Amino acid sequence: MTDVLSLIKNHKSIRKFQDRPIAEGLVLDLIEAAQAAPTSSFMQAYSIIRVNDSNKRREIARLSGNQPYIEEAPLFFVFCGDLNHIHEALKLHSKSMKMGYTETFLLAAVDVSLAAQNLLIAAESRGLGGVYIGGIRNNPQEISDLLKIPPHAFPIFGMCLGYPAQQPEVKPRLPKKMIYMMDEYKPLVNSDILRTYDEVVKSYYIKRTGGKLQITWSHQMAEKMEGELRPHMREYLTNQGFQMK
Amino acid sequence: MTDVLSLIKNHKSIRKFQDRPIAEGLVLDLIEAAQAAPTSSFMQAYSIIRVNDSNKRREIARLSGNQPYIEEAPLFFVFCGDLNHIHEALKLHSKSMKMGYTETFLLAAVDVSLAAQNLLIAAESRGLGGVYIGGIRNNPQEISDLLKIPPHAFPIFGMCLGYPAQQPEVKPRLPKKMIYMMDEYKPLVNSDILRTYDEVVKSYYIKRTGGKLQITWSHQMAEKMEGELRPHMREYLTNQGFQMK
Repeated sequence: MTDVLSLIKNHKSIRKFQDRPIAEGLVLDLIEAAQAAPTSSFMQAYSIIRVNDSNKRREIARLSGNQPYIEEAPLFFVFCGDLNHIHEALKLHSKSMKMGYTETFLLAAVDVSLAAQNLLIAAESRGLGGVYIGGIRNNPQEISDLLKIPPHAFPIFGMCLGYPAQQPEVKPRLPKKMIYMMDEYKPLVNSDILRTYDEVVKSYYIKRTGGKLQITWSHQMAEKMEGELRPHMREYLTNQGFQMK
Repeated sequence: MTDVLSLIKNHKSIRKFQDRPIAEGLVLDLIEAAQAAPTSSFMQAYSIIRVNDSNKRREIARLSGNQPYIEEAPLFFVFCGDLNHIHEALKLHSKSMKMGYTETFLLAAVDVSLAAQNLLIAAESRGLGGVYIGGIRNNPQEISDLLKIPPHAFPIFGMCLGYPAQQPEVKPRLPKKMIYMMDEYKPLVNSDILRTYDEVVKSYYIKRTGGKLQITWSHQMAEKMEGELRPHMREYLTNQGFQMK
C-alpha cells in the first residue's frame, strides 16, 4: 500500500477548485467509503444530501456566513445526523424509539463524523481536496427548511470538494505532549509549551500571507471563543426532537 | 497511490488480536495522523489517553459492559472531547471562555471523531485492526475518575488496536438510496427497501455465525433503541461543564 499515512498527514483545507467536474462513478465510490465507516451499534445514523441546485447553493453560502466556495465547489454535501431510518426500522416491529436523550444526539454526531471523514480521505486519495463547512450551523433552521430536513435529523456540517486550485501548507498542530497522554490525564502545567506553539503558528501565518497575518494560536482562540457559540443550537435541536435529556 | 478506497471499504471491526506488539514509532505516527484531521476553527478540541496500565484496562473493560478485548488489545486509547487547551490559550490573553453551549459540546465531539477516524484508517493501512468502544459511556464518571479526566473534557469512546487474529466479513450497509439524497431530504416512502436490506443483514449473520444468529437490521435496531439510551449522560456532561445551553 502506498503511503496512506503520508496522505493523511498531508491534509490541507482546500477552498479554491479547478473548473473540472468529478466523475459520477467517483462520487458513488465516495458515498460507499462514507458508509464503510464504523457505526455505533450498526445504527448508521446519518444522511448525506448532495446539493447541485445552484439557487440552493447560493442560499447555503449566504446562510453559512458568505463562504463563496460553497457556490463554487464542483461537489457540495450537507451531512446530517439522522435517526429516521431507525424510526422506520422500529415501525416494522410496531415499536417506537425513546427520543431526546443527549446520548442519542451524541451517537448520531459521532456516526456522521466518522462517515464524513472516511469520505474526505477517500476523496483526497483520488486527488480531490475539500473543506468542512461548520457555518451551516449558523442558521440550521433555514438550512433545514431549504433542504426539507425532517424531525429526528439535523444538519451538522457541509463539505466542499473538487480538484484543488491551491496548495496551502500543512497547518502546524498542537505539540503531541499537549494532546497525547499515558494512563491518566495530564493537565498543561507549563504555558511555555503553548507559547512556543504560538510562535510556530504565527510563523506559519506570516509565511502563508506574506506577513499580512501575524496571529498566534492562543490569540485566535481568544478571539473566537470568548463569545457565545451559536446559542440557537439548543432550541433548534429541541425542535428537531433532540431535547438533550 | 495504492487503493485507499479499497482499504476504507474493507473496514471490519476487529476484536481478537495477535500477541504481537505495535512498534512505538508506529504509535506516534498514528497520533500524528489523528492530529492531521480537519478541526473546527483550528480548535483541536480533543485529547487521547493511551491506557497501558493493566489494572486500569481491567477496570475499563468492566465499566464498559465486560468487553474483554479492552484488556487484551495491544493498544487501547480513550478519546476525549477537550476544551482545556483552549482555556489555557484564553488565559494567556486574560480572557475566559463562555462554556456550556450545546455547540461547544458538538464542536468537541466532531473534532475528536474526525481525529479518531484518521487514526483508525492510518492503523488499518499498516495492517492493524480495531474497534471503537462506545461502552465507556456506560459509566463516564467512573472512567473520568480512573483516568483523572478534568472538567471541560469528557471521554467519548475508546479504541482497541492490534494485529488482527480474525478476519470477519464486511458488514453490509444500508442501501445507498436510503442515506444519499439530491438537493433535498427524501424520506423513506416504501419500507420494501428496508425489508430487502433486512434479508441481506440476516444472511450475513447466518453466514458469520453458522446459523446461530438470524437477526435482521430492523430487529436489531428495535431491540437496541426502544430503551433509554444512557440517560446519565446529561448529568455527567453538565458536571463536566457541558450544560447544553
